[in-house]
Order: sequence, then C-alpha cells, then structure tokens
Amino acid sequence: MDEQDALKFIHGKVPRSGDDAAFIQNLLITTDMLHKKSDFPQGTTHYTAGWRSVGASLSDIAAMGGDPIAVVAAYSSPEFRKEEIDEFIRGANEVCQMVGAEYVGGDLDNSDEFSVVTTAVGESVKPVFRRGAEWGDVVCVTGDLGRSAAAKRLFERNENEKANEMFRFKPRIEEGLAIAQYSTSMMDSSDGLVRSLYEIGKASMCGFEIDSNTIPINEMLKGIVEDGEVALRVAMTYGEDFELVFTAPREKIKEIEEDIEISITVIGEVVERDIKMDGELIENQGYTHG
Amino acid sequence: MDEQDALKFIHGKVPRSGDDAAFIQNLLITTDMLHKKSDFPQGTTHYTAGWRSVGASLSDIAAMGGDPIAVVAAYSSPEFRKEEIDEFIRGANEVCQMVGAEYVGGDLDNSDEFSVVTTAVGESVKPVFRRGAEWGDVVCVTGDLGRSAAAKRLFERNENEKANEMFRFKPRIEEGLAIAQYSTSMMDSSDGLVRSLYEIGKASMCGFEIDSNTIPINEMLKGIVEDGEVALRVAMTYGEDFELVFTAPREKIKEIEEDIEISITVIGEVVERDIKMDGELIENQGYTHG
Repeated sequence: MDEQDALKFIHGKVPRSGDDAAFIQNLLITTDMLHKKSDFPQGTTHYTAGWRSVGASLSDIAAMGGDPIAVVAAYSSPEFRKEEIDEFIRGANEVCQMVGAEYVGGDLDNSDEFSVVTTAVGESVKPVFRRGAEWGDVVCVTGDLGRSAAAKRLFERNENEKANEMFRFKPRIEEGLAIAQYSTSMMDSSDGLVRSLYEIGKASMCGFEIDSNTIPINEMLKGIVEDGEVALRVAMTYGEDFELVFTAPREKIKEIEEDIEISITVIGEVVERDIKMDGELIENQGYTHG
Repeated sequence: MDEQDALKFIHGKVPRSGDDAAFIQNLLITTDMLHKKSDFPQGTTHYTAGWRSVGASLSDIAAMGGDPIAVVAAYSSPEFRKEEIDEFIRGANEVCQMVGAEYVGGDLDNSDEFSVVTTAVGESVKPVFRRGAEWGDVVCVTGDLGRSAAAKRLFERNENEKANEMFRFKPRIEEGLAIAQYSTSMMDSSDGLVRSLYEIGKASMCGFEIDSNTIPINEMLKGIVEDGEVALRVAMTYGEDFELVFTAPREKIKEIEEDIEISITVIGEVVERDIKMDGELIENQGYTHG
C-alpha cells in the first residue's frame, strides 16, 4: 500500500484518526515524523529542524482550532553532538513560546538517519474537523502558499541563511482559535492545497470550485519561479507549508478578518461535487511525505 | 556524547524532562522510540510490536502514578503491508484497552528500518517523581525482573510463540496508581534495575543498600540461564522490563500490598549515599537504548 491507502485503512480501524489531530476528552493529540532525507535539506540547521518539527505538530493543533499545551520530541541521530542538541532545543523552545506552549522534552535514540518525531498536546472544547463543510460556504487559506517550496529552492542554491529563515514559521494557533469560532471544516496545508481540498471534500462529502486568480502565491516563490503557471502549480501542490485551509459561511469572513492579523484569502466555494479550478477538474496530487 | 550524557545535558535545558513522563498542568506526556535492530528481535510479530511499543509509553505513565488517556504512534517502515499495520493496531488497541486508555492513531512514514515512536498522554493530580526518596524508606519492585531478557533468548532459539508472549506485558497502571498514594519516588525498570537505582539516587540525592537474596528473578530466565549469579546479573541490568521501582516508608508496604494484585518485593533500603548490594558497590550499568 502507499501512504494514502495505508492512512485510509488505518482510519477505518482507528475511529479518532483522520484529522490533523485526534480529539479525546477535551484534548487534541498529534504526532509527526520528519526525516533528514525528505524533510531537512542540506543546509538546514538544527535550530531550524527543532523549530520546524515542533512547529509542524503545533500547526496540527492550530488546524483543529486548539490551544496547545506541550510538545515532546523523539530525536534520533547517528551521533549526539552537544551543539546540535542545544540548537534543536532552542528552536523547539522558541516556536513553543511563540504560541504559549511548552517544550517538555522527549527521547533520544541512535539511528542511521537524523529524524525527529514530535507530538503536540493541546486542548479544545469544540474542535473543527475536516468534515462539516457545507454547500455554499466559501473556502479560504491563511497567509500565502509556496513558502517551503521557495525555501527548498534556496537550499539548492546554498542560500542557506534565507532558506533557514523561510523554513521556520509561526504556527497559526491564534488564527486557528479565531477561525474555529466560525468555520465549518479545517485542516492545515502541509500536504499541499490540492490534497487539503480533496481531504476536506472526502470528509465533508462535497466538492470545490476554485478561482486560480485568487491563490495567494508566496512572493519569494514568484521571484524564484518566473513562469506564473509553474509558480501557481507549485504553490497549490508542493505543500510542507503550514497555513490553514478552511470553509466558512461567506458572511462570517469579515468577522474572522477582524479577529486576526494575517491575511485570509477566499479562493473559491464549496459545491456539490468534484474539485475544479476555473471550471476544470484538478487531479488529486500533493506532497506524499517521504 | 553518549545517550546518558546527552540526557543529562537536555535535563539541564528542559526543566520538565528527567522523569519517566513530563508533568504539565495536570497532564503527563511521554514519548519513546523503538527500532527493529535494537528492540524487535527477528521473530517479533507486528502484533507484539504494537503492543510492546504502546505498552512502553503506558509504562512511563504508570511510573509517574498516572492514569493514561490516549496513545499515538508514528510508524515508520520500508513498506506498508496491510496485514502488518492491522496487527500493529490490534496490539496497540489491546494493550490500551487493558488499562483504560485509547489508541487514537498517529503518523506513517517510510524509512529503511522499521521503527515506532509512541507517545502517551495521561493525567495525574499529584504524580510521583524520581526525586523524593527519603533515608530510611525501603526500595521495592513490582513483579519480577528478567522477563524481556528471557524473551530475547527465546527469540534467539526461534521459540517465537513463547518469546512473543513474554514480550507483551501488562503496563502497571493500576499498581502505579495504588503505589503513588504512598511512594516517595518511582520510575519503571525499562533501563534495568541498577540504572533505575542510580537515577532515583541521583534525583533524590540518596544511596541504596540492596539485598541480593531478595531480587525477584523471572522464573523463565532462571530456567534458561542456569548459573544463578548470571541470572541475577541479567535480571538486575538487562532492563527492557516494565516493572515499577519505587521507594516508600516501610510501614506503608502492607497497605500497598493490600491494594494491588501482583507481588511487591522489598529489595533493600534507602541510605545516605552509594549504591551497594550485600555491602559492595554496584557499578552503574544498564541498558542503553540503541
């Protein structure tokens, strides 16, 4: 089975799986594995790795409209260097502090490849799931898309300082909490916008009609990928970004916008079936985490 | 740095680390990484792997005197086979159900080596830490020691059915909750009894005087390792068992025994300094997780 089939199979066996985080009692729990080969390009610092891996799990809490409490990490590496562990913890601490969570430690292990598994725990009285989008709702994203894709290209060019900076991000906790007041479904964009649309569509039994002109493409990505069509495709499918994709009644968007500081873009609307952009079907492609 | 030095370094940086689980608000959170090479001998079924890895994290909740709520797992494997994932989930579910927790899913990833990172979340109003042992307390263990060492030898002999059975264990949740009413310090025996004594000794700034005749050695291990001295050493240092090691005032032991069904053995007492058995210093050796 590939990852998508396996996840589908697991969802059938584990009822609380299938959203960005599992909801049990009033807790949200989510775990993520990141590997050097697929997730930390050459040039990624341990500071960025700590930040990004912990941030990825915090993003899953944000995507449920949750308030994070704590994060743990299992850190696996061919060797334990004091400076690397120190920098990893600094990154983990900083991203936690930024959203009012606490990094509380974890486990250490030896492995051939550097990898990190982070688990975040948060709380919510009424989380937002992938199911719940309703016909007539609009579909929106926070911020812009393609930031990580741009960072990867900067790493390839050895522009590591800028690349690391773009690889760190502020998890959308505040925004998730505000959006959760009004949204009917939500998830993050870590697998790419197109995959997010397919996931929400499947869980909510709906389709989407997207307007390509509205997609907020990251400025840095636009600068790197000059062809506008390529930039659009990358922004929509590359993933590894940690923005929120959500649906809400159109009349609530103004209220959400008033509650949060970053931009929100209405990129389309919920329809009965099929996922289309400018009237044409979009194939279900996105980032499959290696 | 080796694992022990790295953990010490991290404990200096992350205040809530250093116990079997981190305590924050009224929650306990713990994460553990297990690898095929070091933790799942040839012959280990995925059913046992799911059970054991989830059980290891539940044991950490038990070791704090906590009540578990949920467990997630990040499952990383060269390939995803439906039967293997199915069996893994069955094992994970069963060990959770046994102690009133729920397996709520996790993450999937590809890696060269099969590995699992499990994270358990539990609750406690007043957990038991490694610090707190007091001079004059007795030191005790639940059940017996050497069960996993015996299982490993059975795997080597290809007695896989029995080996798998012994590799699965009931996390000492009930016992941990009962013991926590009276104990002054606690941790599990997963790194070996000797290492547990050193950890509690360091955190509590005390020593121990152990009586070798009292060590409860697993019967199966005794049968496999005929030399009594070797069996004793293996039982004390091999680790990967999930019993509880705790200190408590001597007069409370009877009450603890009345509260729980399994055996508790007083193996020695808390002294001012040094860790000795039958009057001789014991070296700090134990299982270093690979």
